[in-house]
Amino acid sequence: MSLFLDLVAVSEAVRVLHACAPELPTELVPLPGALNRILAAPVAAREDIPGFSRSVVDGYAVYAADTTGAGEAIPAMLAITGRIAMGEGDIPSLSRGECMYVPTGGILPAGADAVAMIEYSEEMGRDVLVRRAVAPGENVTLRGDDFRRGDPVFEPGRHLSPRDLGVLGGLGYGTVPVIRRPKIGIISTGNELVPVDRVPGPGEIRDVNTYLCYGYACERGGDPELFGIVPDEREALEDVIRRAVRSCDLILVSGGSSKGERDMCAAIIEEMGTVHIHGIALAPGKPTIIGTIGATPVIGLPGHPASSYVVLIALVDELIGAMTRSGIHRRIRTATLKTNISSARGREDYVRVRLEGDDAVPLFGKSGLTNTLIYSTGLVRVPESREGLEKGEEVEVILW
Amino acid sequence: MSLFLDLVAVSEAVRVLHACAPELPTELVPLPGALNRILAAPVAAREDIPGFSRSVVDGYAVYAADTTGAGEAIPAMLAITGRIAMGEGDIPSLSRGECMYVPTGGILPAGADAVAMIEYSEEMGRDVLVRRAVAPGENVTLRGDDFRRGDPVFEPGRHLSPRDLGVLGGLGYGTVPVIRRPKIGIISTGNELVPVDRVPGPGEIRDVNTYLCYGYACERGGDPELFGIVPDEREALEDVIRRAVRSCDLILVSGGSSKGERDMCAAIIEEMGTVHIHGIALAPGKPTIIGTIGATPVIGLPGHPASSYVVLIALVDELIGAMTRSGIHRRIRTATLKTNISSARGREDYVRVRLEGDDAVPLFGKSGLTNTLIYSTGLVRVPESREGLEKGEEVEVILW
Repeated sequence: MSLFLDLVAVSEAVRVLHACAPELPTELVPLPGALNRILAAPVAAREDIPGFSRSVVDGYAVYAADTTGAGEAIPAMLAITGRIAMGEGDIPSLSRGECMYVPTGGILPAGADAVAMIEYSEEMGRDVLVRRAVAPGENVTLRGDDFRRGDPVFEPGRHLSPRDLGVLGGLGYGTVPVIRRPKIGIISTGNELVPVDRVPGPGEIRDVNTYLCYGYACERGGDPELFGIVPDEREALEDVIRRAVRSCDLILVSGGSSKGERDMCAAIIEEMGTVHIHGIALAPGKPTIIGTIGATPVIGLPGHPASSYVVLIALVDELIGAMTRSGIHRRIRTATLKTNISSARGREDYVRVRLEGDDAVPLFGKSGLTNTLIYSTGLVRVPESREGLEKGEEVEVILW
Repeated sequence: MSLFLDLVAVSEAVRVLHACAPELPTELVPLPGALNRILAAPVAAREDIPGFSRSVVDGYAVYAADTTGAGEAIPAMLAITGRIAMGEGDIPSLSRGECMYVPTGGILPAGADAVAMIEYSEEMGRDVLVRRAVAPGENVTLRGDDFRRGDPVFEPGRHLSPRDLGVLGGLGYGTVPVIRRPKIGIISTGNELVPVDRVPGPGEIRDVNTYLCYGYACERGGDPELFGIVPDEREALEDVIRRAVRSCDLILVSGGSSKGERDMCAAIIEEMGTVHIHGIALAPGKPTIIGTIGATPVIGLPGHPASSYVVLIALVDELIGAMTRSGIHRRIRTATLKTNISSARGREDYVRVRLEGDDAVPLFGKSGLTNTLIYSTGLVRVPESREGLEKGEEVEVILW
């Protein structure tokens, strides 16, 4: 391979990633397990919710018309014909001039169209004095007010929140069809790498990318499998990649920061499958490899952790979004750029920034440093059509 | 107990919650398990990172001064004395007029102070022609550039992100001291409740709060334990609360939307411990109970799911933030209020809003409905000092 990579545009890399994203199967999980999962099928209301008209206060179910004109001085007097308990459903109907006690959430008897609050009512033997008029529908939730049978509630691709879980419970979804979590194989390569529990000698550094990719995979709803550190030896890397292909839906190989190592990684992927792209007009992240082995995408990430993380955000997010059929959901906020950012037309740049109030302050660290990953708040993207961004410009910050 | 609750201000409720928050112990977890956990002790760099000066490009380690004036026409010619491999540490030092090949990330030999990129260099037998001058420090990361030994890196209380995991790996933290997850007991009460897999009859509804509280507990880093649905019978509820106190750090009892039920729940807490507050100037959420049994906080949530969720955000967040010593971390954005919101002075209101561009559109649903939980984007708080918020005002939206 030549000294200079043949760079493709980020948009082309994204197109390739979408094209090679394997579709993950659907699985049914019990409702609590659906939290933070991606819904795989539409969810509709299978009956009216609530299934009956209910009181939203403690009070007396009435014909609203019977309270017309009632006030402190001249209360309406209604005969109390019963007391409804919570969960009770078999209730006699109400006639004009009558009322029944109903607790908050209790069923409304047939005929009643409103509830007079207990705070404005008084029981006197077998009668109730209602001291405030109520309008039809007052203090009442009608059958189907929350959801009507057949109402579409959730679309596939939705990332299920705690609130969604509650609503799914109310709709009777004890199990939920979700996209299977992508199994993400994580491989760190490099003769210079030592495990986290070893003190590196001269020339050695600890493996950062395993943990960065692990955390990223979890955050994106994946199920990471760690393959550890692999030395820069062709057979060793081949062997690990072969094992990873058997169990994973997506493989992230980080490291290979030098040209020789990158070429070896690309050569292995090419031998076992196809290298679609090697070299992207992206900074940082230029030497990224996009390949497939069988149906499994294999992404070669840069060795520098901060560069690796940009590639995860800029490219792997696109791949996982396509695999899980949920797209990309980012937290974005606008800010004012505090200093100029220079770039090059034809290249997409991602610059780490720290938010200071409404200002986005670029953090220009040497590549290879990890501290900007924790001192920054997110990334600002310089699109390939721009040669840079100017101080004072309003920019979108992709929040971590 | 009287018909009308004696309401305390939200600020007082928060003070009580902070005072009764039990302190959770610290535990050591392996690095991957520290994701999304709360750091329990300060983290500092225990050595210089990196531990040696390294090249950030593939190229030739040089004395920068040897390249002064070098260009395409008149390259500098340096004798190549060796090739450094990744991970190699025992490297002879460099003399003036010499260079050594060094891959990206490789150690810089003693004496060298810059790296000439391979793209602008050419090997000619035992010499290298350098066609572009480099300045001292160019293409080099110095020992300790990322972190210097003793540098404070993370403060306790930090919520550990994927990026933090990577940095912790680099710093050699194979295990991490974190706050133990709060074990959160979840109890739903009410004779009207049926489990998610049953079709409710007249007067019955499915249990929503179990799943809402479960999702909330997970999202807040808790470890939920579900105690299921308990009928409104004193002995049954006493029994479940007693069991929950034995295994949990915090208990959420939801339901009891009618006065009778609420009073029963409060009476049980009072019998087994102390009711500190019953009734808060909060809408929705007025009938909330704050109690303790032994050292375990017991929170009585409203039965209406949407009201319950507001209490989780407005009050239980404060409790969990204090228990985990991490405070409250909310995603907030500002928006323009689209319609007036009326409130009452002396009461704190939380109104669900939907964001439409930069507008916050209040969703006023009858209490008892759950659909606003999924059609809204978050909450707008009306402080107790205000009688309402006006259309056009800039408001802060607490995003879900």
